[in-house]
Amino acid sequence: MIQAGIIGATGYAGEVLTWLLNNHPNVNLVFLASHSHGNSSFNSTYGNFTNVIENLCIDDNEVEDNLDNIDILFTALPSGKTFSIVKKAVEEKVKVIDLGADYRLKSAEVYKEWYNINHECKKLLKDAVYGLSEIYREKIKTSNLIANPGCYPTASSLALIPLLKNNLIDTSSIIIDAKSGVSGAGRKASTNNLFIECNDSIKAYGVASHRHTPEIEQTLTNEAKEKITLTFTPHLVPMNRGILSVCYSNLKKEIELNEVYDIYKKFYKNEPFIRIIDTLPETRWVKGSNYCDIAIRIDKRTNKIIVLSAIDNLMKGAASQAVQNMNIMYGLAEKTGIDLTPMFP
Amino acid sequence: MIQAGIIGATGYAGEVLTWLLNNHPNVNLVFLASHSHGNSSFNSTYGNFTNVIENLCIDDNEVEDNLDNIDILFTALPSGKTFSIVKKAVEEKVKVIDLGADYRLKSAEVYKEWYNINHECKKLLKDAVYGLSEIYREKIKTSNLIANPGCYPTASSLALIPLLKNNLIDTSSIIIDAKSGVSGAGRKASTNNLFIECNDSIKAYGVASHRHTPEIEQTLTNEAKEKITLTFTPHLVPMNRGILSVCYSNLKKEIELNEVYDIYKKFYKNEPFIRIIDTLPETRWVKGSNYCDIAIRIDKRTNKIIVLSAIDNLMKGAASQAVQNMNIMYGLAEKTGIDLTPMFP
Amino acid sequence: MIQAGIIGATGYAGEVLTWLLNNHPNVNLVFLASHSHGNSSFNSTYGNFTNVIENLCIDDNEVEDNLDNIDILFTALPSGKTFSIVKKAVEEKVKVIDLGADYRLKSAEVYKEWYNINHECKKLLKDAVYGLSEIYREKIKTSNLIANPGCYPTASSLALIPLLKNNLIDTSSIIIDAKSGVSGAGRKASTNNLFIECNDSIKAYGVASHRHTPEIEQTLTNEAKEKITLTFTPHLVPMNRGILSVCYSNLKKEIELNEVYDIYKKFYKNEPFIRIIDTLPETRWVKGSNYCDIAIRIDKRTNKIIVLSAIDNLMKGAASQAVQNMNIMYGLAEKTGIDLTPMFP
Amino acid sequence: MIQAGIIGATGYAGEVLTWLLNNHPNVNLVFLASHSHGNSSFNSTYGNFTNVIENLCIDDNEVEDNLDNIDILFTALPSGKTFSIVKKAVEEKVKVIDLGADYRLKSAEVYKEWYNINHECKKLLKDAVYGLSEIYREKIKTSNLIANPGCYPTASSLALIPLLKNNLIDTSSIIIDAKSGVSGAGRKASTNNLFIECNDSIKAYGVASHRHTPEIEQTLTNEAKEKITLTFTPHLVPMNRGILSVCYSNLKKEIELNEVYDIYKKFYKNEPFIRIIDTLPETRWVKGSNYCDIAIRIDKRTNKIIVLSAIDNLMKGAASQAVQNMNIMYGLAEKTGIDLTPMFP
Repeated sequence: MIQAGIIGATGYAGEVLTWLLNNHPNVNLVFLASHSHGNSSFNSTYGNFTNVIENLCIDDNEVEDNLDNIDILFTALPSGKTFSIVKKAVEEKVKVIDLGADYRLKSAEVYKEWYNINHECKKLLKDAVYGLSEIYREKIKTSNLIANPGCYPTASSLALIPLLKNNLIDTSSIIIDAKSGVSGAGRKASTNNLFIECNDSIKAYGVASHRHTPEIEQTLTNEAKEKITLTFTPHLVPMNRGILSVCYSNLKKEIELNEVYDIYKKFYKNEPFIRIIDTLPETRWVKGSNYCDIAIRIDKRTNKIIVLSAIDNLMKGAASQAVQNMNIMYGLAEKTGIDLTPMFP
Repeated sequence: MIQAGIIGATGYAGEVLTWLLNNHPNVNLVFLASHSHGNSSFNSTYGNFTNVIENLCIDDNEVEDNLDNIDILFTALPSGKTFSIVKKAVEEKVKVIDLGADYRLKSAEVYKEWYNINHECKKLLKDAVYGLSEIYREKIKTSNLIANPGCYPTASSLALIPLLKNNLIDTSSIIIDAKSGVSGAGRKASTNNLFIECNDSIKAYGVASHRHTPEIEQTLTNEAKEKITLTFTPHLVPMNRGILSVCYSNLKKEIELNEVYDIYKKFYKNEPFIRIIDTLPETRWVKGSNYCDIAIRIDKRTNKIIVLSAIDNLMKGAASQAVQNMNIMYGLAEKTGIDLTPMFP
Repeated sequence: MIQAGIIGATGYAGEVLTWLLNNHPNVNLVFLASHSHGNSSFNSTYGNFTNVIENLCIDDNEVEDNLDNIDILFTALPSGKTFSIVKKAVEEKVKVIDLGADYRLKSAEVYKEWYNINHECKKLLKDAVYGLSEIYREKIKTSNLIANPGCYPTASSLALIPLLKNNLIDTSSIIIDAKSGVSGAGRKASTNNLFIECNDSIKAYGVASHRHTPEIEQTLTNEAKEKITLTFTPHLVPMNRGILSVCYSNLKKEIELNEVYDIYKKFYKNEPFIRIIDTLPETRWVKGSNYCDIAIRIDKRTNKIIVLSAIDNLMKGAASQAVQNMNIMYGLAEKTGIDLTPMFP
Repeated sequence: MIQAGIIGATGYAGEVLTWLLNNHPNVNLVFLASHSHGNSSFNSTYGNFTNVIENLCIDDNEVEDNLDNIDILFTALPSGKTFSIVKKAVEEKVKVIDLGADYRLKSAEVYKEWYNINHECKKLLKDAVYGLSEIYREKIKTSNLIANPGCYPTASSLALIPLLKNNLIDTSSIIIDAKSGVSGAGRKASTNNLFIECNDSIKAYGVASHRHTPEIEQTLTNEAKEKITLTFTPHLVPMNRGILSVCYSNLKKEIELNEVYDIYKKFYKNEPFIRIIDTLPETRWVKGSNYCDIAIRIDKRTNKIIVLSAIDNLMKGAASQAVQNMNIMYGLAEKTGIDLTPMFP
């Protein structure tokens, strides 16, 4: 059994991760740690866990003393809060999967620019492996520190990489218009995220300035082998879970839709969690699962290609991809514990 | 392996049942039948099943020819549509679990009165066992025809039975005020159930005339060993899943809240799916699970006792209770395939 | 023109009140005051007011200095926060309509018991008139201090008073099961009211202990001329606005439904804002209006009468009833500024 | 008083139009006609109108006989259903405002191509004036047949026209990614629009093939004085009302954001219903009003300009723009009857 701990267990991603690891046949959950709900039982925060996990959460500060008891630590903390505990964990040979943003960007300068935080753990940046499971599986296998991808970057990168790998598009023309459920905003009490402020309304936010922009660009640049700069617009949609990412770009040359479909199907041929579908993706069809649904359309009138992808932001966009990465790191069957049919309605 | 078939698989309860049986370790799903979507692939109706179940649904009419291939038939059809197929199945020694209302009421007259349908299969009524698992487990074990309880009756009966068994209340004073998500209204295209007509609004419906009234009364009468008549008011709430049932009655004598809690905890002591909780139930904490959460309050000022229960209407209120009953019938561990932690958010 | 000021303008009731008074033909809005958003423009909090009201809100503390400029002050503050400003206003002959709870209960002891606040303005309690417009119109006309009713009490009292006035029910049997949209919980940042915590779920809260209980009892006791104690259960429903109140009681003697309807129609004959309807009330049909929709059902099987009422909690349950009361106080046509057709969808 | 009639009054746009015209000081509503609800009272379909409009709807077929009694006819019908009645009305000198699509496209061939309907009233196409009020006010003044714009085209055209008029963008680079509430899908009973199918999910639809594409292109081509072809992607969002349109294009040359803001503010200087705002638009801030909120962002890293606009799809996107056009046609103050502050929450 893999002995695992979670810091940030009472956030939304942490809760879903707890749900998954608690059901994982190869994992023993040693502790749940919470900054805001330390020393209260997990089910007093999340009533769904009554009769399931009634243990006390430990406080964040107690995690260091418990590193001896675990093989792997999952961190789901706000940006800039992981530096000391991750350093300590890595020193003590505890594997780490960080669901936050602190190890995703390879450049501490870019991190500073977009997050406005001085990176205090720079030397781990080059060791950290970006955990987009389908793309970086080989590196993940041998890594001790995984930077689990952001929700928007997961959906968007999986949608766009086949285009880039096949040199189909003008790389300067990429626009990503993405829509997220409100759980992406986290569990912090803020007026902006009240039911009344979100219900029955839609808004864009962080237009041309969202922190996931350099993360997507870094991945696409890696895959395209050329510098990619793009426009990214996130939106908040009145729903609990889900991201729909709609990716526009200009085709370099004429190509038929079925040829592009063939390219995608071939590219993701062996990937159980990527579904290349003919119909347009809807977030409801991936809810509660690790699937990423991808469809493609060509607008012949404007020579644009449109790739649409849908994920559950808390699953493939956070917790289940983290488990997928753990499975890869430990040589388990990759679907172990995350082979869930999406739950509808 | 238990060979199973489902008729009515493309309704909401049918879809959830398909989800459960497909993941059940002891079941092989032989066919899915649908009146409205026969001869189209299951995932073309429910996109969550892409890569999971892409088989064609057969038409309802083809079920009879396929009875040979199954051990158990689940029927999830509108009222009055099961008579011929259930008769045939029972004759052929196929076990049946009916998720509809046709075999719940022991009296064909009462059925006629509330459903306005002539019962064409009266002689099966006395063989049918009412599948409220926790209460009728012993009879279920040996039954070949289970009348799976309605969603409101499940939540309400589990809430009230301990009061009756312990002779705590005036049995003429029961009022049940229950609230359901819209999936309870089914998948039929009707203006009333359009998003715009349901969103951001609440209404009561079927006040003093809802068909689940005699079903609840029949169960409570059985358990109380005296004739019970009650007032039942269902509501439609703008949410996908969930029922909250609030049950009022007059206490016969003074009793402390903790004594009542003790009675409930004792009554449901060995029941893994009943959670007697101190906090008030919320439907989100049971979503996607077979749990029934129950809390109790006493209003000392009026001498009333209020029992509140929450279930997922499509799970404990339909599909997962059906599976629980199947497990009981086949002597499997009762939690097999339905031991799911509720999914939040 | 009536010169008016609002304290608590950036709460949800305050915002709706601002909307109404700004459109009222006989009112000039002199100031909006806000504790949390003083010195910021009103439309920076509520973007719907861009181009409409872009004035700065003043701070709560500045209200006292501005009493000279107004004829009437509307207070929409948390419980216990109005004592000094209302005392001052009344001394300076400024009329007051308080949308909060501080002057509703005639007894400071009952107030202390349910609100756990020492009432610091007891001598105003006997002067304050409870502003349930249809019932206390005559007293409102000459009052200088109106205690505007709570949202649940408005819906419930209007539903039940005709039964009591006509001596139709056993007054010890009243149960009110009421359901509210989330705006009733106010605009304070709290985890409980986040979109994710409220969406797609229903819960009861404050069972047998909600503060509106003694307020409803006080009104019904007044009207019945006998002491009434009742059971009240509020619920939170995932919608923005609306209250549905379902009121159960035992009939004293047999009566036909149409007779009861006649009684209600006669009782509310001259009331333009009370609609006695045959169909069951739905909150969507009253949204954005001052209407209270009432329907009646009799459960002959149990001899119970069920009265259902729907209001918009922010309108008839708060802001538009406050304007109705102002209209009455100033001898204006009662519908002035609030004669709004409900907005659907 | 303007004598007015509405066909299609029981659709969502028709209902909102009825709401507006019923409150309009210069309009007398002579009849409401409905295909599906003829000969039933209007408030039996829309309960918000109880006590307000309880007249019977007439049947569509009776409209012709009633043309004598009206000055203006509003048609809110499915595509292809207006040909005979509009022809008749125009012949009888009744002014027409069509809220549908039948007279928007100047070319019957383009109409045929996108709507797959043979236009049976071609000669009216050249007389019809496209009723984008702010842009075509002068032509509207003297027109007898207004083609009221679609919801997406209204939001998108108002957002983009200033860029084109000022020659700021590469006209071949336009992408419009728009999001609509479910009321845009109409009131027809269809499984796709059931609450359960729409709630808690987002999807794109009609990608690169939606019928509003040629309508937007026609308007932009007119204004740019060059042929414009663009990519348009609509989405369905789980909310009742609202459209958010996000319009991307490449800047021709460098320009500062404040310069672009100045251009927009100058362009819409005298327009009371266009609000050029610094913050990002949210549909909740325009709900229930005729406003179009517009904000601009520049992505310097990619040299793209992003214009975001929000409207209420049933108001500025349908009914209130129709009234605005009527006001213009009759020389009334343009805000008459539609000067509504958006309603929140």
